Amino acid sequence: MISKAKARFIKSLQVKKYRQAEQCFIVQGAKAVKETLSSGFTVLTVAGTKEFMKSLSGSLAGRSGELIEVTEDDLAVIGSMEANNAALAVVRMKTPVKPVLPEDEYTLVLDDIRDPGNLGTIIRTADWYGVRNIIASPETTDVYNPKVINATMGSFIRVNLFYTPLEEMLALSTQPVLGAFLDGEDVHQMKFEKGGLLVIGNEARGISPSVEKKIQRRITIPRTGGAESLNASVATAIILDNISRQS
Amino acid sequence: MISKAKARFIKSLQVKKYRQAEQCFIVQGAKAVKETLSSGFTVLTVAGTKEFMKSLSGSLAGRSGELIEVTEDDLAVIGSMEANNAALAVVRMKTPVKPVLPEDEYTLVLDDIRDPGNLGTIIRTADWYGVRNIIASPETTDVYNPKVINATMGSFIRVNLFYTPLEEMLALSTQPVLGAFLDGEDVHQMKFEKGGLLVIGNEARGISPSVEKKIQRRITIPRTGGAESLNASVATAIILDNISRQS
Repeated sequence: MISKAKARFIKSLQVKKYRQAEQCFIVQGAKAVKETLSSGFTVLTVAGTKEFMKSLSGSLAGRSGELIEVTEDDLAVIGSMEANNAALAVVRMKTPVKPVLPEDEYTLVLDDIRDPGNLGTIIRTADWYGVRNIIASPETTDVYNPKVINATMGSFIRVNLFYTPLEEMLALSTQPVLGAFLDGEDVHQMKFEKGGLLVIGNEARGISPSVEKKIQRRITIPRTGGAESLNASVATAIILDNISRQS
Repeated sequence: MISKAKARFIKSLQVKKYRQAEQCFIVQGAKAVKETLSSGFTVLTVAGTKEFMKSLSGSLAGRSGELIEVTEDDLAVIGSMEANNAALAVVRMKTPVKPVLPEDEYTLVLDDIRDPGNLGTIIRTADWYGVRNIIASPETTDVYNPKVINATMGSFIRVNLFYTPLEEMLALSTQPVLGAFLDGEDVHQMKFEKGGLLVIGNEARGISPSVEKKIQRRITIPRTGGAESLNASVATAIILDNISRQS
């Protein structure tokens, strides 16, 4: 059974201020919790149903920290998912690591992505295409927001996200800097370098003027219909797919 | 000023049962409301701020039905958006039209897409690539859900979505039937026909076995990283982009 104090603590981790104070975040769902247990993250607490606890193999159970048996109703109260019939983990944040960007890899640069679903989906898509690093502006949504973590479907484990002011970072870069715009080179016709930085702009305002100045190649996804723009995570995916077909 | 009864009525349209009883739905935000006013949809009520009302040109104001001046706080109460500082419209549903599918066009077929954000993003992306028709299984989320309408960013106006059992529809089709799977032909290597039906499966379970039987070509997006799968709306977009580059 879970104590009221513990339930309150876990629930508080839905709020950024408390996550930062505690340096913890939550991971929800059977699959994501198990993936986290097998990862390099430190799990402090697992709150799981009887079935979930039974399904934990010895090696995973040994990495679970404190184990609390809960009901599905408990999970609904302490978590943020509409349907979680298995488990929730309290996980320690990793110390942010400023990545060294390999010249022959693509890195995503997120200029103020605000929607948690978009950020999570971008991380998941980056992971699909082997992008190992994402640089995000300080205004970009917190990666440890439970909606972001859920939308990554476990990919937060494999993709390193680092927050830093973009202008400085781009000014120091020796790699090609590409950006997604509504006017630019046709992504279907472009020849891509082996590696580079791909900048994706805010959902409503696009890439900010100060970041735009650092961009060397403007990429456009050709449109044949009536929509004015594409969702930011969709545009990211299409460009990564076009890069990936050349490598 | 908005009456309590009217506010209650508009709020009720966030629930499918009431939308169906009233055959109405809501559109939110300045841009989407104006686009709807210029479209073939019948707008019954516009609730807008003083600024929004001033910004309505004569021709649009003439199509607005009942006009109610509201505050931003009113919009927060009657609507579902976190930030809507302009307007909300009550719009009459169109009678569903079973589309005649042109042989030389692609049509999306959605097998039980449940997430409103995914459905809205798929409609927006379809509109970007000139897909005019979407066929959806009866279990697919209601297109008139406010979260779906918001995520379409106005594309619900241009894309016709029709709900029908997929097995029958696919059995009668004379067009090629393609489907997105984790195993299949490499989308980067495929030669696409001029038109066809592209089936996208449920977020968790993929394409259902009864629908899978009707699929003639299995499409896969090649993966170079660690994620197990892609978000359904992302996969749809990548395949449509690969089709579009050949046309």
